[in-house]
Amino acid sequence: MEREDFAVARLSKEERAQYCRHQGMTLWLTGLSAAGKSAVGFTLEKLLLQQGYMAYALDGDILRQGLNQDLNFDPVARAENIRRVGEVAKLMNDSGVITIACLIAPYQKDRAWVRQRHQVENLSFIEVFIDTPLAVCEARDPKGLYKKARQGEITNFTGIDASYENPLQPEITIDTTVMDPVAAAGFIMNDLQQRGIFPND
Amino acid sequence: MEREDFAVARLSKEERAQYCRHQGMTLWLTGLSAAGKSAVGFTLEKLLLQQGYMAYALDGDILRQGLNQDLNFDPVARAENIRRVGEVAKLMNDSGVITIACLIAPYQKDRAWVRQRHQVENLSFIEVFIDTPLAVCEARDPKGLYKKARQGEITNFTGIDASYENPLQPEITIDTTVMDPVAAAGFIMNDLQQRGIFPND
Repeated sequence: MEREDFAVARLSKEERAQYCRHQGMTLWLTGLSAAGKSAVGFTLEKLLLQQGYMAYALDGDILRQGLNQDLNFDPVARAENIRRVGEVAKLMNDSGVITIACLIAPYQKDRAWVRQRHQVENLSFIEVFIDTPLAVCEARDPKGLYKKARQGEITNFTGIDASYENPLQPEITIDTTVMDPVAAAGFIMNDLQQRGIFPND
Repeated sequence: MEREDFAVARLSKEERAQYCRHQGMTLWLTGLSAAGKSAVGFTLEKLLLQQGYMAYALDGDILRQGLNQDLNFDPVARAENIRRVGEVAKLMNDSGVITIACLIAPYQKDRAWVRQRHQVENLSFIEVFIDTPLAVCEARDPKGLYKKARQGEITNFTGIDASYENPLQPEITIDTTVMDPVAAAGFIMNDLQQRGIFPND
């Protein structure tokens, strides 16, 4: 049977939103290694799921074992790392999932690029700065990476021999020295509700 | 405030499935250019959404404008193209979305790799062969690509100067010479229900 038309029209965002419980969005958690991005991100993922939202955390370390396993930590590879995760977040966001990207993403231009890529397709993008001082991260050092970086065993380590550029205008800032992951997840959830970001509530 | 534990436990697949309406899965639609993969995929996406399922089509052509924009059509780049889409499908599947990948994916080993990557994480993977004869695809030629390939204006074109290896044991085969996209989408939906793949129904 011949098809009358090769291109089948996809549902528009508005039509899709009628069938999904809520629209998707991207929450981009940026901060130093050991700042608490994944702890906050996974806690928020769980909180959202338990409240009936579709949510998924994209963790930078986990993605480096899969999609980004071919990339190292030099600036070009970091940009490609963020480009790919940005594209995946965009796709998941478009599907209706609240997508929580947890990546160091140290450079302003890379984060700005991801934001712009979302904006041109009218997809929500919320930058969340997990603002933990370097000294606190280094004291935590759960994987011993800061120690190795100080000893020169690993290079291009953010905060030690590679720079971290603070977000200029993040939508949300979390100070993990006064909030644990559960409090931080609740704070973000509350902030999003204040913004009216869950239209089907 | 110090965190007691850096690693926050994520919800297990079983816990996640309690909160989502259904588990995710990957439907991998493979076939020649112009076989009707995207037409079937987008129609199935719409049908699933309208019936209350979370569904999203990953279209090879669209992804080549985003995530895979740096890749060409030689065998190494095709393998990387499929690797990346396989990883994205795995993530979306894990999030609870019925993920419909529409890619030529001409080589058996690349498709087998994606299947294996899903299996090790216990994620559903269904191979759907969009089985349209080359002569029919070439007669359709909606983008004029077959004509260009015959004239040598483009190279590495599947079916002309690059091979397509038929799926060995696809879970579903669609003959688009007897089914239009709506019929094909309904056929796939029915097949999945027969397999009891929508556990929350």
